[in-house]
Amino acid sequence: MLSAIADSPGISRAGVAARTGLTKATVSSLVDRAIAAQLVEDGEPTQRQGPGRRGTSLFLSPAGPHGLGVEIGVDYVATCLVDLTGRVSRQRIRTGDNRSQPVNRVLVKVARAIRSAAAELPVRVGGIGVAVPGLVEAATGFLRTAPNLGWRDVDMAAELRERVDLDDIPILVGNEANYAALGELWNGGHSELTDFVHVSGEIGIGAGIVMDRTLFEGVRGFGGEIGHMSVDAKGPQCSCGARGCLEVVAGQDAILRQADSPDVSTLVARLSAGDRKALTVVRSVARWLGAALSNVVNLLDVPTIVLGGTYATLEPWLRDVLMEEVDLRVISADWSEIRILRSTLGTEAAVQGAATSAVRAIVADPDPFITATVPS
Amino acid sequence: MLSAIADSPGISRAGVAARTGLTKATVSSLVDRAIAAQLVEDGEPTQRQGPGRRGTSLFLSPAGPHGLGVEIGVDYVATCLVDLTGRVSRQRIRTGDNRSQPVNRVLVKVARAIRSAAAELPVRVGGIGVAVPGLVEAATGFLRTAPNLGWRDVDMAAELRERVDLDDIPILVGNEANYAALGELWNGGHSELTDFVHVSGEIGIGAGIVMDRTLFEGVRGFGGEIGHMSVDAKGPQCSCGARGCLEVVAGQDAILRQADSPDVSTLVARLSAGDRKALTVVRSVARWLGAALSNVVNLLDVPTIVLGGTYATLEPWLRDVLMEEVDLRVISADWSEIRILRSTLGTEAAVQGAATSAVRAIVADPDPFITATVPS
Repeated sequence: MLSAIADSPGISRAGVAARTGLTKATVSSLVDRAIAAQLVEDGEPTQRQGPGRRGTSLFLSPAGPHGLGVEIGVDYVATCLVDLTGRVSRQRIRTGDNRSQPVNRVLVKVARAIRSAAAELPVRVGGIGVAVPGLVEAATGFLRTAPNLGWRDVDMAAELRERVDLDDIPILVGNEANYAALGELWNGGHSELTDFVHVSGEIGIGAGIVMDRTLFEGVRGFGGEIGHMSVDAKGPQCSCGARGCLEVVAGQDAILRQADSPDVSTLVARLSAGDRKALTVVRSVARWLGAALSNVVNLLDVPTIVLGGTYATLEPWLRDVLMEEVDLRVISADWSEIRILRSTLGTEAAVQGAATSAVRAIVADPDPFITATVPS
Repeated sequence: MLSAIADSPGISRAGVAARTGLTKATVSSLVDRAIAAQLVEDGEPTQRQGPGRRGTSLFLSPAGPHGLGVEIGVDYVATCLVDLTGRVSRQRIRTGDNRSQPVNRVLVKVARAIRSAAAELPVRVGGIGVAVPGLVEAATGFLRTAPNLGWRDVDMAAELRERVDLDDIPILVGNEANYAALGELWNGGHSELTDFVHVSGEIGIGAGIVMDRTLFEGVRGFGGEIGHMSVDAKGPQCSCGARGCLEVVAGQDAILRQADSPDVSTLVARLSAGDRKALTVVRSVARWLGAALSNVVNLLDVPTIVLGGTYATLEPWLRDVLMEEVDLRVISADWSEIRILRSTLGTEAAVQGAATSAVRAIVADPDPFITATVPS
């Protein structure tokens, strides 16, 4: 019932009945309970369609339970809140290197960020989505490895549940690159996206693969690890133990180091000023990234690439060389145009995707919220 | 109905009724018509289960229409026939380089091979599957490009239909690497395969990706192009125009040239005799192939690799280095064991997959065969 309203905001009770196959009486009773639970609200009357009684339009309620997203980055912790209508609010980012910290200290910081975001909200948190920079096993939800944090085998949901006092609300855990792709799909500005690979360039590089508007995660949830794609098998040593991974030649640390820039904004200033060294470094990075993305397109035949994270920021200087590489290397390019888009959310995609995942879980299964508000 | 019998050979009419939800009377009538059309046959009675009437077991008929597979290789044309039960027969291979030939001359040769295979068969050909070494567009069935043949934009089904006189039987066209993966799935000796990548090393290198026992082809059917994966971006020039594609460092031509061997059997003899140069070349090829396959596993999270074509022949000398590379490069390897298997069909996988695809199309839609035999 909520899905019908989410898909068609403003739908009437009769419309919901037609969509779901439920009787009008059942829909009316369900809607009344959902309104009481603040999941749904009556809106403006729908446009008059001929004579007769006006329908009332139903909307998901912005005053209902929210999804809370939290992203554990390598050098920051970000939070945001998303209401049932998909509106994002109260985005916060706390910078600070998490690499040099023990797991427990970072989790304490993350729990504090969650509690603080929840406390700002006048309404309930209905679910938490946690984006992590590592492999999350689908069957267990365990963070198996986060190479850039040095973490292994952490039961994130259990660890966080111990540290935040938010009853039994669901805690979802997922890979940040996957959540970033979903954030771009659900909250981003490219409305026509159905099949694409979203590549998040930050300190780690991850890809989220979406096909037919559905996340592709692989057999055990470990898919999309483009950061450790071998692009220069005899190249420099990567922290993973192998040589010539994409991350070690085209990750944010590699870019800044090669360009002698302390941070991304300094690099952007130098690129904008036409600094030759900065431009050369970014062109070289674009060659490696272009080879890696061509490999993805040749393997998966997804026609659209969305540049996220730092790559979204650097897009104006990456685009031409990327397009050249893709046109040269993708052997179906003559029959299937490859589009390169810039993420509209940039580094905020993952935390928004995590929060929206929590919202979508509420819409898919609202029973706990409705039951809790029915008088006994 | 045929699918129920295909899935459970020996099933009774009552079993088919239970499986399909059809009434026993309907099933009996359908079975009678399928027996008249030689699609189904009554077999031995099923094992007695308590007192009462014995059921009769139903099997797909080996005397029914066959699928004819034809593979257009770079240097051969292969054919085979597969009956409704999946049994493979009358496999033929005609060697001869197709690279130096105009399209029309090769198609005449292919049509002759099809007619000759069909003529050997005492029963009908019910469908043809054509495996080609290039990109086949799913929406049109066109062979868009076969780089090693130099072909572009060929409507294979129409061209072959003009040249063979086999009424209106369906002609399916597919990429040889995809058919090889399906051949291994359906006809191969590894019965537990569900999620795997099958890599066919011949003159070209292709991958067929199977997930949940279903072929993954990508958005337009162009997926699995591992041969043009960039593994050495500044490496040798490939025929596709790019540099350092897997094919140019690890394809069959590259192996034989580097090892100074005229053909694969000579190379195998030298490897078996411990020839140092041959061993060094194959170890180097295994490094490149291992990097490429690690990229596939990191991206798709498919836990099983099946070595096909020439790689199946060279498997004893490839395996150790491949396993080393995969263990080093696949970052989920500690939580998800990667298996490397040798194809049981080798270079015959593609033509068998093509023929079996044609058979499965008959089983999925047998109406044309049944209607044709019903008295008017």
